[in-house]
Amino acid sequence: MDASTEAPWRVVGLHHVAFAHGPDAGPEDALCELLDVTPHEETGPGFLERMFPVGDAYLQTLEASGDGVVQRFLDARGPGLHHVALEVDGIDAALAALRDRGVRLVDREARAGGMGTRIAFVHPSAFGGMLVELVESAPAGPAR
Amino acid sequence: MDASTEAPWRVVGLHHVAFAHGPDAGPEDALCELLDVTPHEETGPGFLERMFPVGDAYLQTLEASGDGVVQRFLDARGPGLHHVALEVDGIDAALAALRDRGVRLVDREARAGGMGTRIAFVHPSAFGGMLVELVESAPAGPAR
Repeated sequence: MDASTEAPWRVVGLHHVAFAHGPDAGPEDALCELLDVTPHEETGPGFLERMFPVGDAYLQTLEASGDGVVQRFLDARGPGLHHVALEVDGIDAALAALRDRGVRLVDREARAGGMGTRIAFVHPSAFGGMLVELVESAPAGPAR
Repeated sequence: MDASTEAPWRVVGLHHVAFAHGPDAGPEDALCELLDVTPHEETGPGFLERMFPVGDAYLQTLEASGDGVVQRFLDARGPGLHHVALEVDGIDAALAALRDRGVRLVDREARAGGMGTRIAFVHPSAFGGMLVELVESAPAGPAR
């Protein structure tokens, strides 16, 4: 076992699951009523992201607002669940370990995500077609 | 506000997210390595279900093993994320409230799910195409 496989990181929880949809028909109103919450909203490249707190995790909706990854997903598959995000307690160490293992990554280095997080996507081919995002919460983020 | 909207139940967390796939290409090996866990396995009608613990929640994989809802999903969409399951602290009260609100349900009454849970699916039309499962954990289930 080399040093990288002993790197001090682990997956600590399910951070969010994301649902992609177009401008007309989303689950937002029903989620607000079911969960009795108001979502946090943030824009990304070609989409509007809403985060609905559910216990320690979130349901995320991604509403396409222009060209980009969300619209391309909709063009290929229609509205549906888009990705699952796993919270790690050290995203740089996690990515280093995955790179060492030869796991195919979309983002080889962490980048800024919503709500002050640092994120990276793993290529879906690494998980049998499942798009997995790794998330490291902001230092002042929700306690876990 | 009528009595049903004050029923003593709430969504307490994200219980699991499910990924459907065929017999050949699943994310199981990669999940075992990433999460350092061995999944709980259980059979359902036309599928093999595996539950991978992730913090207080689970990643679930649904491997089609014959005719049924998983194979029909694969025929329509191919491998992909299938549904999201929300844990409620009183599924009978939750279903009664949703019925009172006129929310379209797949299961009007709770039925037995895996790992001793009681479950019910909401019709995807109620959440803009997102298939939502409600789950009540077994009394001796994971603490939350």
